[in-house]
Amino acid sequence: MNILIINSGSSSIKFQLIQMPSEKLICSGLVERIGQKDAILNYKTELVDIKQIEQIKNHTEGLQKVVDLLLDIEKGVIKNTNEIEIIGHRVVHGGNSFSNTTLITDAVKQDIKKFGSLAPLHNPNNLEGIIIAEQLFPNAKQAAIFDTAFFQTLPEKAKRYAIPKALYNEEQIQVYGFHGTSHKYVTEKALDYLKLKTSKIITIHLGNGCSMTAVVNGKSIDHSLGFTPSNGLIMGTRSGDIDHAIVFYLVNSLGYDVDKVNTLLTKESGMLGLTGYSDLRDIESQASKGNDDCKLALVMNAYRIKKYIGAYTAAMNGLDAIVFTAGIGENSSLIRGLVCEDMDYFGINIDPNRNDIRSKDIREINIETSKTKIMVIPTNEELEIAKQAYQLIN
Amino acid sequence: MNILIINSGSSSIKFQLIQMPSEKLICSGLVERIGQKDAILNYKTELVDIKQIEQIKNHTEGLQKVVDLLLDIEKGVIKNTNEIEIIGHRVVHGGNSFSNTTLITDAVKQDIKKFGSLAPLHNPNNLEGIIIAEQLFPNAKQAAIFDTAFFQTLPEKAKRYAIPKALYNEEQIQVYGFHGTSHKYVTEKALDYLKLKTSKIITIHLGNGCSMTAVVNGKSIDHSLGFTPSNGLIMGTRSGDIDHAIVFYLVNSLGYDVDKVNTLLTKESGMLGLTGYSDLRDIESQASKGNDDCKLALVMNAYRIKKYIGAYTAAMNGLDAIVFTAGIGENSSLIRGLVCEDMDYFGINIDPNRNDIRSKDIREINIETSKTKIMVIPTNEELEIAKQAYQLIN
Ligand SMILES: Nc1ncnc2c1ncn2[C@@H]1O[C@H](COP(=O)(O)OP(=O)(O)O)[C@@H](O)[C@H]1O
Ligand SMILES: Nc1ncnc2c1ncn2[C@@H]1O[C@H](COP(=O)(O)OP(=O)(O)O)[C@@H](O)[C@H]1O
Repeated sequence: MNILIINSGSSSIKFQLIQMPSEKLICSGLVERIGQKDAILNYKTELVDIKQIEQIKNHTEGLQKVVDLLLDIEKGVIKNTNEIEIIGHRVVHGGNSFSNTTLITDAVKQDIKKFGSLAPLHNPNNLEGIIIAEQLFPNAKQAAIFDTAFFQTLPEKAKRYAIPKALYNEEQIQVYGFHGTSHKYVTEKALDYLKLKTSKIITIHLGNGCSMTAVVNGKSIDHSLGFTPSNGLIMGTRSGDIDHAIVFYLVNSLGYDVDKVNTLLTKESGMLGLTGYSDLRDIESQASKGNDDCKLALVMNAYRIKKYIGAYTAAMNGLDAIVFTAGIGENSSLIRGLVCEDMDYFGINIDPNRNDIRSKDIREINIETSKTKIMVIPTNEELEIAKQAYQLIN
Repeated sequence: MNILIINSGSSSIKFQLIQMPSEKLICSGLVERIGQKDAILNYKTELVDIKQIEQIKNHTEGLQKVVDLLLDIEKGVIKNTNEIEIIGHRVVHGGNSFSNTTLITDAVKQDIKKFGSLAPLHNPNNLEGIIIAEQLFPNAKQAAIFDTAFFQTLPEKAKRYAIPKALYNEEQIQVYGFHGTSHKYVTEKALDYLKLKTSKIITIHLGNGCSMTAVVNGKSIDHSLGFTPSNGLIMGTRSGDIDHAIVFYLVNSLGYDVDKVNTLLTKESGMLGLTGYSDLRDIESQASKGNDDCKLALVMNAYRIKKYIGAYTAAMNGLDAIVFTAGIGENSSLIRGLVCEDMDYFGINIDPNRNDIRSKDIREINIETSKTKIMVIPTNEELEIAKQAYQLIN
């Protein structure tokens, strides 16, 4: 059975065509830097490996280009869209309505749209992916795999905010969590690797969006993103944790419009707000040339992650391993190094040589005697989604 | 020299008359539960110890009653207001204008008023205290001692938010910190007690407002309250840390007015929002009778403190001692117990018997073999203020 996975993100679309149950990868790719002139389309099968650099205005255009390639006589992998049995869509926010993977109906799409107010950088893009996929693959089943599902195990003390309880009971304002598919995937890989009877680990997903999860025996018990994917770690364009009263100050004392503040904190803050760049590669390169804003932003970013490692170690009263994943986590030895620096009190001792090795494999980057393992595990949200879509219809 | 100290807080006024440089306490007292029918006025000298329970409508009425007692022929300690040479006022927010104790002028009062937008529960009460004091003690000097001063040593990575850098450079939006007089006082007491050459401690101030400070060698390096005294720990009526995007959701999706959200998060949240009670004594008593909201709120409150202990231990890469202070920190063995439970990974091992002993003394409540000391140190913001006021005019 052919399963097409679509992960339509904030500035990128990842896609994979996976054969199940063999888990064989037929085709994969990534559209990056969407919205920019030098957008990159990567498309890879057994036979071809294409990289096109061209302007891609929006997600619709990006996804259409992917489908054209899939059907292409020379480079394609299918002849007819009917060869795709099910499409698994990553959907960021499932609110309180979805604790599991589900087939997409009009009602589900309405809900995904509704929860767009909670994940404005994601759900609209996810929904766009679904709508185009429905048009291009009219005979395929469509499934939504929600990032929020992995966090259903959070205990009440981690899920609740200290706000009037009616806002929880009647308005469902609580921690939902995000990037759940990734945290779940790397958790399972880590536990396979570690082979511990009981385990306390922290998974650190650092992409354009960033989050951390405390995981005890495979179940999430705390998480850095909350009601929306806005708080916690410093992200590409999102502030992460701030004093919320800054919002009131911007509105009441500086005369900002509420929507402008929202845009400011989600699209103009984070690494972009501090440095003028949102892509970590640019920031690292500027920092190496002496740019002080970039140097500070890297240190602040790592400092925030350090503090969450400490917080979750306290929440678990122990720490067996930390796991870095996603674009930054897998590739930036600089950020990993800054995070693990001066953390021997937590049994965290990085090996600078191992940290510097580039690889696509699961690996340990701690010194042999490090009490806490430091791991790099490439995430594979697509494979996780394929598994769940497959289970849904079998 | 007689120095009168006025600490006009959110629901209380503390006052002390201190002779300097002898540090002799002439008179002290506390007006509690201001705004309630059963407000309590405590007034104590060498000769009298009065406790009056009566309605006290507001801070003006409370302070007037204190002055009447100070001048009272039988119970008083001064004959004439001229006997007070200087009055030291605790002022919560000094913005970026005050890094030190200062004599009060009209311009200073304007600034204190201006910074009321940053500390709406405090600066207005502080200013009210100053204005009444100026009327009642026309010949005394008046000094403002700012809670924000102790946090001038925060490094940039702890002081800055990941928001557009112009908001820092041009609008001074940054971490200021609060309860600095208390954190400074207990830090000095702790260091005297511990007698360490280098030290890493965490001071935990738990009153109606709550905050924590990471202190390396006597200098603050991180702090849980930020631009305003709204975030961080769960407080009596303030939420502490939330996903700031909840504000946008309340406004955009639930139709709340921005000011209403502000009021909700500062006056109707925290322990009050979770339980209906803001006074921890009430919450502990309800919890012991089986009230589930109160039980959860106590656990949430302690869990947040635990996480900050972990975070600051990571920031310092070590931990010699934690110090509990202020109304809850000094008196609630329940909260201290919940915080220190299951924290042996941090070398924190509480002695339940020592924890239960009520005392006004500096004390250790850890077991002898605990790597990290757990201390209770009664705060004395008034004495700290007296010292600073005295230094200012000598
Ligand atoms: N070699 C690298 N070094 C440093 N950062 C990298 C590298 N490769 C990718 N990144 C960073 O990873 C981030 C994107 O991660 P990704 O997981 O693709 O994001 P998302 O899926 O959230 O859109 C970008 O900030 C990018 O700069
Ligand atoms: N014996 C006690 N047990 C538990 N909590 C107490 C006790 N005594 C005082 N408190 C709590 O201390 C808090 C007030 O602390 P305080 O330092 O006086 O506040 P602030 O100075 O911020 O107004 C209240 O929540 C009160 O319930």
